[in-house]
Amino acid sequence: MRTNNNQDHDVPKDHPRYESLKYRHDIIEGMKKLVVAEAGLIAHGRGECFDYMLGERTSDIAKEAIEAAVALLYLAKHPIISINGNTAALCPEALTELSKILDAPLEINLFYRKEGRIEAIKKVLEDAGAERILGLDESKMVEIEELSSNRRNVDPDGIKIADVVFVPLEDGDRTEALKKIGKEVIAVDLNPISRTSLWADITIVDNVIRTVPEMIRIAEKLKNAKNKDLKNIIDKFDNIKNIQASLDVIIQYIQKQKEDAFNILKQ
Amino acid sequence: MRTNNNQDHDVPKDHPRYESLKYRHDIIEGMKKLVVAEAGLIAHGRGECFDYMLGERTSDIAKEAIEAAVALLYLAKHPIISINGNTAALCPEALTELSKILDAPLEINLFYRKEGRIEAIKKVLEDAGAERILGLDESKMVEIEELSSNRRNVDPDGIKIADVVFVPLEDGDRTEALKKIGKEVIAVDLNPISRTSLWADITIVDNVIRTVPEMIRIAEKLKNAKNKDLKNIIDKFDNIKNIQASLDVIIQYIQKQKEDAFNILKQ
Repeated sequence: MRTNNNQDHDVPKDHPRYESLKYRHDIIEGMKKLVVAEAGLIAHGRGECFDYMLGERTSDIAKEAIEAAVALLYLAKHPIISINGNTAALCPEALTELSKILDAPLEINLFYRKEGRIEAIKKVLEDAGAERILGLDESKMVEIEELSSNRRNVDPDGIKIADVVFVPLEDGDRTEALKKIGKEVIAVDLNPISRTSLWADITIVDNVIRTVPEMIRIAEKLKNAKNKDLKNIIDKFDNIKNIQASLDVIIQYIQKQKEDAFNILKQ
Repeated sequence: MRTNNNQDHDVPKDHPRYESLKYRHDIIEGMKKLVVAEAGLIAHGRGECFDYMLGERTSDIAKEAIEAAVALLYLAKHPIISINGNTAALCPEALTELSKILDAPLEINLFYRKEGRIEAIKKVLEDAGAERILGLDESKMVEIEELSSNRRNVDPDGIKIADVVFVPLEDGDRTEALKKIGKEVIAVDLNPISRTSLWADITIVDNVIRTVPEMIRIAEKLKNAKNKDLKNIIDKFDNIKNIQASLDVIIQYIQKQKEDAFNILKQ
């Protein structure tokens, strides 16, 4: 029997929803540790819904975007990885490893400030092996003019001087602001038509828990690639076409469900 | 500037996302008051995603299901309305009003038990004007054999003897169990292909915050209808076709977004 303090993590490993329930549990625990904002739970639910319609797998279309993203991060002078509560709760180790391979520091950048939240996220990242974490000292932050939320404050050694910003899970206002001040933006977003997805230069329509390990694999593969070849990967990539192809994946999924609706009922 | 304790309810009324943000706020506040489980926030997010793809409006297809639902509830000998944390947080007044019009008692029935949760939900319903609330006295509960979760416990004066159970927002296991013990089930679910949606006799694919007021309107309209006419409404209704039509609404929405993707970017 389920008990209140044990909402999901008593799920057996062979449960068909094990992966999804495990990450749901991580998000809930993250909230209890101040890492995740309450609104982050709702955002996670929206993501679950889109991931469901993407078949909960990284499509070949997403893999193309991932390759372009890694190429752009390798070509950047000052790449940076922006961290929020949900990404810290979901995949701190993978993000830390990616940060090291790409030589792109992690910057904590939050929408919902709360006493102790930055420290809680810092601890999660340090436990995951992170050595260089930016965005910690609020007194040193500088403002991005384009932004009205808390996140207008960015680290002078991080997003402020970055040319390429990797924002796994981001809200639309901020992505738009980063574009307006001339940054190249790489986003991971399960919603192909969010404002973040539409504003980003490279939009990876995928679940961040699968994306980041895949980015690590691609980064290893491209480690010794020539700049010319990296540029070629980016030139061949068309973000709008990629987003539209992701929407096709969703449409096909729902079409299939529609055809199966009666059969599913009879199982 | 946003502050942590004020995540959403400082949104101005003319904000295009006002409604959605208001209910998001109600769910978060509901969690703080023990009414809503942590997992209820994630479930709310999944709902937001589907509602977005349904255009955040009650389709004519959903209205057909609502009419059939009201007819079935009027024809029932022992209709009952099952209440969980999310519905109590989102629309307690409307559910209370519906309960009175249909003479169908409210029964609190929770998946995640927690000390004080039933009392918290009872208070919300009483504040909304509810007079008859079942599911309060755990010592009197009886078990549904088909269910392994906490919700196998049902009120002997409520779900146990009910012929028609209205479950706005429900999980698949329970809907299936209610069907297996011979109940007729009416569900509200934004996911047209959830197990609840597929198992229910009448599935209203819509947001509960719009559905219940619409049910009240229809209940007023059908108040003096003859049983023959109510039966006729039910006979004409085909749940699988209705679900498939809701899936078409979603497909059309995504198709449109796909066509608009480039234009949206340029706005």
